[in-house]
Amino acid sequence: MYNLLKGKRGIIFGALDDMSIAWKVAEKAYDEGAIFTLSNTPTAIRFGQIDELGKKTKAEVIAADATSVKDLENVFKRSMEVLGGKIDFVLHSIGMSLNVRKKRVYSDLDYNFLDKTLDISAISFHKMLQVAYKLDAISEWGSVVALSYVAAQRTLYGYNDMADAKALLESIARSFGYIYGREKKIRVNTISQSPTMTTAGSGIKDLTGLMDFTERMSPLGNADAEECANYCMVMFSDLTKKVTMQNLFHDGGFSNMGMSMKAMSQYNKSLESDASLGD
Amino acid sequence: MYNLLKGKRGIIFGALDDMSIAWKVAEKAYDEGAIFTLSNTPTAIRFGQIDELGKKTKAEVIAADATSVKDLENVFKRSMEVLGGKIDFVLHSIGMSLNVRKKRVYSDLDYNFLDKTLDISAISFHKMLQVAYKLDAISEWGSVVALSYVAAQRTLYGYNDMADAKALLESIARSFGYIYGREKKIRVNTISQSPTMTTAGSGIKDLTGLMDFTERMSPLGNADAEECANYCMVMFSDLTKKVTMQNLFHDGGFSNMGMSMKAMSQYNKSLESDASLGD
Amino acid sequence: MYNLLKGKRGIIFGALDDMSIAWKVAEKAYDEGAIFTLSNTPTAIRFGQIDELGKKTKAEVIAADATSVKDLENVFKRSMEVLGGKIDFVLHSIGMSLNVRKKRVYSDLDYNFLDKTLDISAISFHKMLQVAYKLDAISEWGSVVALSYVAAQRTLYGYNDMADAKALLESIARSFGYIYGREKKIRVNTISQSPTMTTAGSGIKDLTGLMDFTERMSPLGNADAEECANYCMVMFSDLTKKVTMQNLFHDGGFSNMGMSMKAMSQYNKSLESDASLGD
Amino acid sequence: MYNLLKGKRGIIFGALDDMSIAWKVAEKAYDEGAIFTLSNTPTAIRFGQIDELGKKTKAEVIAADATSVKDLENVFKRSMEVLGGKIDFVLHSIGMSLNVRKKRVYSDLDYNFLDKTLDISAISFHKMLQVAYKLDAISEWGSVVALSYVAAQRTLYGYNDMADAKALLESIARSFGYIYGREKKIRVNTISQSPTMTTAGSGIKDLTGLMDFTERMSPLGNADAEECANYCMVMFSDLTKKVTMQNLFHDGGFSNMGMSMKAMSQYNKSLESDASLGD
Repeated sequence: MYNLLKGKRGIIFGALDDMSIAWKVAEKAYDEGAIFTLSNTPTAIRFGQIDELGKKTKAEVIAADATSVKDLENVFKRSMEVLGGKIDFVLHSIGMSLNVRKKRVYSDLDYNFLDKTLDISAISFHKMLQVAYKLDAISEWGSVVALSYVAAQRTLYGYNDMADAKALLESIARSFGYIYGREKKIRVNTISQSPTMTTAGSGIKDLTGLMDFTERMSPLGNADAEECANYCMVMFSDLTKKVTMQNLFHDGGFSNMGMSMKAMSQYNKSLESDASLGD
Repeated sequence: MYNLLKGKRGIIFGALDDMSIAWKVAEKAYDEGAIFTLSNTPTAIRFGQIDELGKKTKAEVIAADATSVKDLENVFKRSMEVLGGKIDFVLHSIGMSLNVRKKRVYSDLDYNFLDKTLDISAISFHKMLQVAYKLDAISEWGSVVALSYVAAQRTLYGYNDMADAKALLESIARSFGYIYGREKKIRVNTISQSPTMTTAGSGIKDLTGLMDFTERMSPLGNADAEECANYCMVMFSDLTKKVTMQNLFHDGGFSNMGMSMKAMSQYNKSLESDASLGD
Repeated sequence: MYNLLKGKRGIIFGALDDMSIAWKVAEKAYDEGAIFTLSNTPTAIRFGQIDELGKKTKAEVIAADATSVKDLENVFKRSMEVLGGKIDFVLHSIGMSLNVRKKRVYSDLDYNFLDKTLDISAISFHKMLQVAYKLDAISEWGSVVALSYVAAQRTLYGYNDMADAKALLESIARSFGYIYGREKKIRVNTISQSPTMTTAGSGIKDLTGLMDFTERMSPLGNADAEECANYCMVMFSDLTKKVTMQNLFHDGGFSNMGMSMKAMSQYNKSLESDASLGD
Repeated sequence: MYNLLKGKRGIIFGALDDMSIAWKVAEKAYDEGAIFTLSNTPTAIRFGQIDELGKKTKAEVIAADATSVKDLENVFKRSMEVLGGKIDFVLHSIGMSLNVRKKRVYSDLDYNFLDKTLDISAISFHKMLQVAYKLDAISEWGSVVALSYVAAQRTLYGYNDMADAKALLESIARSFGYIYGREKKIRVNTISQSPTMTTAGSGIKDLTGLMDFTERMSPLGNADAEECANYCMVMFSDLTKKVTMQNLFHDGGFSNMGMSMKAMSQYNKSLESDASLGD
């Protein structure tokens, strides 16, 4: 470890269990010398293992519904109190779609569910930023990161309305990144991560097949949760002060691949198998 | 005129007055041999001149709130009835932000207004597509276009939450474009138009200065409403059947400019003027 | 047919045989009312069937090496003479890699071959534009199109140095599009076409497997040469006057897909087949 | 300093004087615990202050023409010898256009100069990678970075054929990044830096005006050479192992801005000044 976050104060939203990216971020941030609070919904706190993480990383756990401005105000106020000053970094790792959960396909969306998807997965990020901005809760040259996915740019079967939520999330990062940069020198970015086998991710249709495909397509293979946490460390550090409004792909190269040798040769097997079956 | 839309049936959402892009689209579509209906909100119909357009283009005007699934169902059903068959093309030219209107800046958004911005300007497009899909109201190889703006990719001062709405709109075009293409061979695209001095556009802050800048930045100058209507004609025609899920810039080249000679030389005047003032 | 190019004069570079996209463009342009000349290398003229195309479309065939400024000057001068005025549209459909042909992989490029790849496939486009510009050979509001491929943005196994050539080609389209737009109101764009089984394309490794994959990934399937020619018609017409410096994907939606149901389910077969083989 | 590069061996191409980005990279890399060699052309070594940098950072200076495969072989061999093992990081900070220097505008390029621009500024990067690949000179999980500029995506008046060179450079990073990732787990990225007042950059037309504009457009202002060096540190470190084939904007947010309040208000002054002059 490098002491990259020595003396820095943070808030990490969205750790559930030790498969969560936010969990790994907390562990790494602790190792890198940061102090921080953890936040998730009361339900997630009850059913997840976040209290354990809190103990391990000496972090207070603050229950909050990230769609509630009032709850978010409490998180920022309480965090500044507990940590003894303004916040230097924030992680937003929050996403959920009832349409996905309830198996409503994209051509049969429930619009109340869609509102919730957008509110929880994207607008919550605006609320977080606006609350922090109004409370003047983030230090100059602070860094805010939200986790995203390539579905924001490219349609993936089964990813459903989460694709739209991620597109909205990335747009909010740009829009608020402009304001926060101009006014307070605070940077806002999204990290677009490889498909990751988290407890949340396991709802996505065909994730095993997809992860096999992206593993073979990506020259470096899929990035895992721990590697993503490493990337968060550099984005929270003082070494990336002029990077803002960006969507940063952390995916082993997947986003810029059209077809790899490995994926093509695997795919070709399916064609041979069709041929041998007379299909 | 070329008879590009001869025998085609359409629905055009969003014409208000003769400055509207949708208005020009209706005129051109009429000239190109299409029959169609027009739709807008009851209020817009009352205060705009859409009835006049209806007479001129022999189009029935159907009042509808584009955020209401029920109203949209009526538009598609009634249109098929009036026009005598399935729909071949649809234009979505709808956008509105109460945050912009009420001068709530992006770091002080009213979240009820934001919900409305997204619902009116973006989710209405999903509703339109889902309604059409469920009614099987669009013909094979039909074409759906929504109007967008470069703010979906790049932040513009004062464009506010409309930027996020346009990002969401473009994502919906991709997401539904996949489904509709796969299932019905129907294409869905967005056209990202130059800033245009419409009645709606006139709410955007500093639009005159911005249009001067984009005019000088764009090698061909800003595209106007009539030229946009021409581009819609080709997107509705049978000559673009395999173009889908795209965001097509119609902007005189602005989107791919970093700095032009004309804009730089104009900008430099401001520096000289500062210098002469001792600023 | 719509008379979209009535009264227009053009030059079409790169037709070889009736599988060529340029060949289809010539046929369509003829049908749409244009007059034009055809150009290709002496070797291509000898071994292809371009003379036959010339007869069919009443077009003079002008031999030229597109890397030779002198030859290009002759093409533009002779074309203006034969067609009786300035040129309204130009198609650049030229590409060749000796590294691909001689099976030099990308980590073992021959740099003389690379120079040739870039000169033939990309710099020739600059030469064409510069020659036309100096001769003032293209009419105001003329349209220039070069054919490209998604490899310019995303790496495809086996596409080799042609990917770099296409990236360079698209950059030249932007760079010269700025100049030509500013000075002469002439637009310059690239069309990024689906993989197409032309005589030239057949050198690409694994093209059959790749085309199967892209066919299943693209909601509308791969675009074929004839459909590409249709798209060229609209780009040459007066209906797209303000579109410039763009790279326009004509690919059935492929470019904005991350994973489709059809491609995933085909891919999954290969995994099942591995599983049943104990792999 | 964080010891981010402790135990790592590198090669830094392109330091000229203390305004060079490569110069700052060397200083930072030294502070972060790396050992490395420096390389530049014999002429640059003679006229620059690179020997001084070598002393300061305990780095051997190796003269090489980066367009010469033989010279590059020598750099890699000698570096491994001097540093005692395979290389962990490489910086390519090389670019030059004779067309810019000799004031040949983009519509009047000298094609021999263009060949040189591409060879020096882009193909040299392929040569570097291919040489390293063949010598197996880079360690697993090594990191290669080349410096680029937004002109690769967006045309800037006066940037001339360097725009095309940067587009080609970024394509080479993707293409070789795929191979090197797949075969050796080595990542290849480009950093797209704000306009920077280096000795090399000072040839670009109107750089002062442009830098004023980008400073006002970028919410965090332009990134300077030292900040760019910081970003290189994280890209060379073990914390970004799964980032590859990316073009990373390091520009204070410029790349995702359409118009800022500050730039608009400055621009508007020029309009007022025109108005007061009756222009």
